[in-house]
Amino acid sequence: MYQAMSTLGFAQESSYTGPINLAGAPRGATVLVLGAGLAGLVAAYELHRAGYQVKVLEYNQRAGGRAWTLRGGDEYTELGGFRQRCEFDAGHYMNPGPWRIPYHHHAMLDYAKRLKVPLEPFTQINFNAYVHSRSAFGGKPQRFRHVHADFQGHVAELLGKAVDRGQLDDEVGTEDKEKLLEALRSYGYLDKDLRYRKSDNSSGIRGFDQDPGGGLASRPVFSEPIARHDLLQSGLWRSLRTMSRYETAPTMFQPVGGMDRIAMAIHREVEPLVQFGAKVVRIDQDERGVEVSYVDTQRGGTTQQVRAQWCVCTIPLSILSQIEIKVGAAMTDAIQAVPYESSVKIGLQFKRRFWEEDDRIYGGISYTDLPIGQIGYPMAGQNISGKGVLLGAYMWGTNAYELTAMTPEQRVRAAVEFGAQIHPQYPAEFENGMAVAWHRSPFSNGCFGKWSDDSREKHYENLCQIDGRIVLAGEHASRMPAWMEGAVLSAIDAIGRLHRRAVATAVEKT
Amino acid sequence: MYQAMSTLGFAQESSYTGPINLAGAPRGATVLVLGAGLAGLVAAYELHRAGYQVKVLEYNQRAGGRAWTLRGGDEYTELGGFRQRCEFDAGHYMNPGPWRIPYHHHAMLDYAKRLKVPLEPFTQINFNAYVHSRSAFGGKPQRFRHVHADFQGHVAELLGKAVDRGQLDDEVGTEDKEKLLEALRSYGYLDKDLRYRKSDNSSGIRGFDQDPGGGLASRPVFSEPIARHDLLQSGLWRSLRTMSRYETAPTMFQPVGGMDRIAMAIHREVEPLVQFGAKVVRIDQDERGVEVSYVDTQRGGTTQQVRAQWCVCTIPLSILSQIEIKVGAAMTDAIQAVPYESSVKIGLQFKRRFWEEDDRIYGGISYTDLPIGQIGYPMAGQNISGKGVLLGAYMWGTNAYELTAMTPEQRVRAAVEFGAQIHPQYPAEFENGMAVAWHRSPFSNGCFGKWSDDSREKHYENLCQIDGRIVLAGEHASRMPAWMEGAVLSAIDAIGRLHRRAVATAVEKT
Repeated sequence: MYQAMSTLGFAQESSYTGPINLAGAPRGATVLVLGAGLAGLVAAYELHRAGYQVKVLEYNQRAGGRAWTLRGGDEYTELGGFRQRCEFDAGHYMNPGPWRIPYHHHAMLDYAKRLKVPLEPFTQINFNAYVHSRSAFGGKPQRFRHVHADFQGHVAELLGKAVDRGQLDDEVGTEDKEKLLEALRSYGYLDKDLRYRKSDNSSGIRGFDQDPGGGLASRPVFSEPIARHDLLQSGLWRSLRTMSRYETAPTMFQPVGGMDRIAMAIHREVEPLVQFGAKVVRIDQDERGVEVSYVDTQRGGTTQQVRAQWCVCTIPLSILSQIEIKVGAAMTDAIQAVPYESSVKIGLQFKRRFWEEDDRIYGGISYTDLPIGQIGYPMAGQNISGKGVLLGAYMWGTNAYELTAMTPEQRVRAAVEFGAQIHPQYPAEFENGMAVAWHRSPFSNGCFGKWSDDSREKHYENLCQIDGRIVLAGEHASRMPAWMEGAVLSAIDAIGRLHRRAVATAVEKT
Repeated sequence: MYQAMSTLGFAQESSYTGPINLAGAPRGATVLVLGAGLAGLVAAYELHRAGYQVKVLEYNQRAGGRAWTLRGGDEYTELGGFRQRCEFDAGHYMNPGPWRIPYHHHAMLDYAKRLKVPLEPFTQINFNAYVHSRSAFGGKPQRFRHVHADFQGHVAELLGKAVDRGQLDDEVGTEDKEKLLEALRSYGYLDKDLRYRKSDNSSGIRGFDQDPGGGLASRPVFSEPIARHDLLQSGLWRSLRTMSRYETAPTMFQPVGGMDRIAMAIHREVEPLVQFGAKVVRIDQDERGVEVSYVDTQRGGTTQQVRAQWCVCTIPLSILSQIEIKVGAAMTDAIQAVPYESSVKIGLQFKRRFWEEDDRIYGGISYTDLPIGQIGYPMAGQNISGKGVLLGAYMWGTNAYELTAMTPEQRVRAAVEFGAQIHPQYPAEFENGMAVAWHRSPFSNGCFGKWSDDSREKHYENLCQIDGRIVLAGEHASRMPAWMEGAVLSAIDAIGRLHRRAVATAVEKT
């Protein structure tokens, strides 16, 4: 079937073509998997299915790693000792890590399908959400649909003018000229004179001041486009790029009930193999196998050792670079080469879903140049009376470092104060919040591997090689930083190669 | 609260500001509602809540009118005697009429909320769906994301060129010029030389030939943009307009389980008041009340009469224009002035969700210049193995007339044949279909009132006036043709005015 589709030109762009086939695993072959995040879980699940004897060591007390969901009652203690208890009402949650799955992340979708994890749409593009800049329009948030329509309209009008005047005749042939003008008129919602102006037509894309109605007194009132100068100077057109990029364009998904559902489903398949609270302190190997030393964080005691023929290590480089590991210089250098991105996500519970009731924003994201970066509106429970939890901040870089330095309470307070500039309902409706600063995570010391182009060129292939009996996996060993799909594809690639190595080694011996 | 929001500039554009208040209904006042579609149901529900004695006559054997859902086991007989039985598997359905609710349809959302009808997102914009023209690219469907990205890129590049050359200096001042170039570079995914070309950058919006992956052999392969000339000549840029207009931009909703759920919820509130199978044949009035004559389509017998002080008539004009009604010349002329749009919708059940499994299209719509017009992909049950029902055709005008002339079986066959040009999997996977040609509906003789600008100017206000004791309502008495919101807003406007008239009349008499 895939062959047939390929011929018809419908081939998939993803390297993932279905469940990995690891037939012929050597009898009694053993694998240690370090880390029970998505990469580790997938590695353990597939190797176990193929007949390998697998053991998984995980430092945390739960599986899933950064694919994590916080719900009411959950507790979380950061480096530095800050302890938070999630006070969200039942049925509400936040995803401190990944929160969406693009349609082209075939591996993630396939695991959800095979393990029967229900998905629901995740809206990123919401034309009625806000775009906001402190230095534009007196700090008043604008609707995305206004910025979108007006930028497009002004661009179409300007290009129409240049084409109409013949100034681009060297570029656009006669045959194309009329088509281009027709296209600009359509695309830009221009009038017959190629002008973008207040009209039935432009209100048909940007919306009306008063929508058409029913019965008498139902005439629409057209809306006035934002002037080109104001729009250009505002910088709000930056959001247009974000909203149409391949990574986040519709359709996207989220698991019903929280992002950890997929990891939990894989974990259920390998539960007896996973040991929580096992902090790896040393990874050694020789020509016969791998020996991992770890501390039992719950029961304490002396360092323990576990051995296997092979090892898939999915520990984030931010942690692995602090652990003694016996690999060659090339991989050691690679492990040390990747700094981790800083990020903070803050979930806020409100008494009332004012963003829906007052602002008519159902799902999607508002963008701002305030330190909070984004406000993400929940997909579940829309158009129902009651409370809601929104993503009150999602930030990187300098802003994230500043908030990481604060206590969780201070971060939450900051998110409420900043957010009130976009939603003045915040202070009156706020109930409680959770703030996860990824650099304070004991399990990852950061958010994701921030490869520079230079480091990637120099170290990436060295990082991904099998070194003796050890192979690394995780989003850091992929070209899709921060995405779950990267972690999963990395794991699949790593175990595929490890399997071939194991088979070849077993054959040599016999 | 609304006042406060207004001051902050967050006022809603809709005329709907919450449940209508009909306080002070005259004791014992009676109202006849003709039609149990959405307008009739809303009128009956609100008048009943306000204390009016309400009776509803409905020709059909069910409530909801065109807000209708077909499920396995449903039967439907068209004018001409064509009878169809829906063979969809349990859990699958099609909406032959309305199928989506924009976020700004406040009245529809409010009724769903008040009556606790769960909603789910409806995706219209799907960047991975197809746009297709028989006369472009050898008839090979293109991905929306390619057309979208490349049109935008070419437009940005051309305008960048004109601006850079100084050809638009008379339009764009010095201060704006640099901003505009920066914006075009960002918006159009241009390189630093303002060129839209095959690169990491352009693949970041249009997608890759091979996506980045994990581990080794994970390098992305960039994709080649469609040449400007080919894109302009293809006409496929027409879909870009459709996808961003106010009426259908995200977020949109559908009721979980089918569009009839909202009508059913209102119907449950007024069930004892509604008489099905009552075909209205005459509407008379004098200064004291309204007398409606109807035939009981199930029990037959002689014409029966029912009287009330007031009447809200929601019968489509296509039908009402065939019924004797005692109103003035202005309203009579208005009733006769509105032709009804032709439309055909066809639901097709397939053994396998190949559009998801092979084509990676989850929800949304593919557009084509084939007579089928559109292919709409289901929102429910995505990423689950099994069957699926998609909307195999949604057409108007000439194409709809042609298919209306066919038998339902011929229409379904035509939809499968045409659709196979976009999805070659059709013939092998097809199971069964339902085809609703609205001009053959005994209950509406068409799809919706197709007002011309001239008719609207001359007749619309006359149509909406209260004539004696009769007022009309429905999508035809709104400025939102075909939309459920128009029907509901029309009903609310009509009963508000009728209520004031009833109160004033009662006061006069006392």
